[in-house]
Amino acid sequence: MPLVRISLLEGKPESHLRKIGDAIHRAMVETISIPPKDRFQFITEHSKRQFSYPAEYLDITHTDDFVAIQITLNQGRTLEVKKALYQRVAELVSQEAGVRREDVFINLVEVPKENWSFGNGIAQYAP
Amino acid sequence: MPLVRISLLEGKPESHLRKIGDAIHRAMVETISIPPKDRFQFITEHSKRQFSYPAEYLDITHTDDFVAIQITLNQGRTLEVKKALYQRVAELVSQEAGVRREDVFINLVEVPKENWSFGNGIAQYAP
Amino acid sequence: MPLVRISLLEGKPESHLRKIGDAIHRAMVETISIPPKDRFQFITEHSKRQFSYPAEYLDITHTDDFVAIQITLNQGRTLEVKKALYQRVAELVSQEAGVRREDVFINLVEVPKENWSFGNGIAQYAP
Repeated sequence: MPLVRISLLEGKPESHLRKIGDAIHRAMVETISIPPKDRFQFITEHSKRQFSYPAEYLDITHTDDFVAIQITLNQGRTLEVKKALYQRVAELVSQEAGVRREDVFINLVEVPKENWSFGNGIAQYAP
Repeated sequence: MPLVRISLLEGKPESHLRKIGDAIHRAMVETISIPPKDRFQFITEHSKRQFSYPAEYLDITHTDDFVAIQITLNQGRTLEVKKALYQRVAELVSQEAGVRREDVFINLVEVPKENWSFGNGIAQYAP
Repeated sequence: MPLVRISLLEGKPESHLRKIGDAIHRAMVETISIPPKDRFQFITEHSKRQFSYPAEYLDITHTDDFVAIQITLNQGRTLEVKKALYQRVAELVSQEAGVRREDVFINLVEVPKENWSFGNGIAQYAP
């Protein structure tokens, strides 16, 4: 169900993208309990002129490895669960893809369960 | 008003993209009553390394024709209206563009009416 | 905190993109009081086949300079503040980048403060 948009600078090898995608997905499976098969990830590789982020914000520095992750998911996760998700995504992206934890930016957009159709024109999650 | 982001694999002819866009728009006009001129669609054509979706999820199989449609729109549509939208989008995208209904993924993000400006710096839909 | 997605037609010089990004950011600093360093902007340059918007909608005409700006930000801004944001974005994008005010489209997606992590796997804005 989550729709994950991943934005980063172009010029990285395919293996780097795959490691980042795998790490994000594993963190989501572990912390927000999505099914392992529920993986919908769309990556955009931006040129420098298209991609603007601060060298430093909130005392956190960013490098060319900066990765922005916007996750649209069902509403209702608690603050504790969200915190666990952020921590695990940063941890695994760092461990698996060699991206500094500082360079992992995450934003959640929450929607009701009835706002998804996974195919066949049916609202599979609707009550 | 709806902002429609369409994500699919690169390599399709222009006519395929146009048919998909036309089908989605017609389904929205028919089921959620948007004005025919209210068409804002942004397509991203992804390379394989950028585009991850499951071969099967919820017993629905996906092929290289997979299309993900994320629609930001005004809040307040009923579940019945949303279901009619999903059904008609899948139906028309299948009929007009030859995409299997299984390959049509839809997600809605709802916002209040005051969250739009269509130009001139004015909140045209605000109360 | 705001995540700003900017969509426009390809073929513009880098200076045009920079002026648009600068203008949007300045308008946000002035009207919704974000810190000057809080700049996260991702631009997508679309080919014509990927980019659909009406020649006219709500008596507002659009040209090839059309720019769509989708801003994900913390919820809670008043209608007056949102109106000030729309007005200032249109004004500055027009003044600095030479885009007609009619060609500036804005959409806001609001999320709670706990829905952001700016790095290190921490929910920096959570209560």
